[in-house]
Amino acid sequence: MRSVTEYLWFETKTPREFVNITAPVRSIVKGARIQEGLVLVSSMHITSAVYVNDAEPGLLRDISEWADRLAPPEHPYHHHETGESNGHAHLKNLLLGHQVVLPVTRGDLDLGPWEQVYYAEFDGQRRKRVIVKVLGE
Amino acid sequence: MRSVTEYLWFETKTPREFVNITAPVRSIVKGARIQEGLVLVSSMHITSAVYVNDAEPGLLRDISEWADRLAPPEHPYHHHETGESNGHAHLKNLLLGHQVVLPVTRGDLDLGPWEQVYYAEFDGQRRKRVIVKVLGE
Amino acid sequence: MRSVTEYLWFETKTPREFVNITAPVRSIVKGARIQEGLVLVSSMHITSAVYVNDAEPGLLRDISEWADRLAPPEHPYHHHETGESNGHAHLKNLLLGHQVVLPVTRGDLDLGPWEQVYYAEFDGQRRKRVIVKVLGE
Repeated sequence: MRSVTEYLWFETKTPREFVNITAPVRSIVKGARIQEGLVLVSSMHITSAVYVNDAEPGLLRDISEWADRLAPPEHPYHHHETGESNGHAHLKNLLLGHQVVLPVTRGDLDLGPWEQVYYAEFDGQRRKRVIVKVLGE
Repeated sequence: MRSVTEYLWFETKTPREFVNITAPVRSIVKGARIQEGLVLVSSMHITSAVYVNDAEPGLLRDISEWADRLAPPEHPYHHHETGESNGHAHLKNLLLGHQVVLPVTRGDLDLGPWEQVYYAEFDGQRRKRVIVKVLGE
Repeated sequence: MRSVTEYLWFETKTPREFVNITAPVRSIVKGARIQEGLVLVSSMHITSAVYVNDAEPGLLRDISEWADRLAPPEHPYHHHETGESNGHAHLKNLLLGHQVVLPVTRGDLDLGPWEQVYYAEFDGQRRKRVIVKVLGE
């Protein structure tokens, strides 16, 4: 069994940003020289998400607006009594999920035709990390 | 380490369908001759979901209606400006999740008493795939 | 490849409870003597969730109230025609997710600064299990 662990760093310029990370994840997988295995792609922060879906720009707006409808930023969250203002971002991490596990087959990501891996930042403008861990042989 | 990769194909007769895939996944696991490991079951499409829950028919209707309340088909999604009409199905993929990782113990799926694996199609009537990848020893 | 499988048992005193299970999961990982790998932490029941987020008490209330807004207990679920009354708990399992996969690096959980693993019970007062399965080398 082989394993390779790398970290992707983000410091978005705006509070909210959707970053397509398919290419860097694929590049880590190819560099790992693992033919068959799994790769975990997981946000190490609880106010951003990692998910798989389409790269269509209209859909990215839909996902962002949908997350706002289900977890509105302006809601008076108890969490804000600590001085924080990012309650909604915690809930969006839970709504969209903070991680995915992708299959590695014949040395490459084994994705469907429209599957793209996204890092969704909901409380940005600070340094944050995603762990990419490949396991296999 | 051993690994086995198979694909389940679906072409549902209706746009929406909930398919219990516990038996085919179990059969792949048993055929893999892996005693201890993990199996990834992941939709390769971004308008269908893979989740674990109960097989009770009333609950299946509840899940479908709940997903419609949280991601209504008739909403004017930006994604529809591309000519698509399946915006809601993308959001349901995110709501229910597109994958599960199941434990393999003593050569079999290690599930709780009511855990069943479901493929939930929200934009069907076309050929779609689920990857089943078993890793272990 | 090595693997270690353990089960955490819960019997909460109230129907709803959020239990921080980071310490017991970490202890299983350290006991597994696996340096590099993945650990699956997965509820074996379909009315409780396993998720990663912050341990801040206000946020725990926010998550609980948010889950009630999106999946209200008092809704007339079809599932209740079977005599059950826990329809909302099934949906909360889907909303928050029933499992996480955590990275193991240098023999320890590889978590971000605020990441805590939670078992969220929505239909308690009975014996329930979470499987913790560590895979690696």
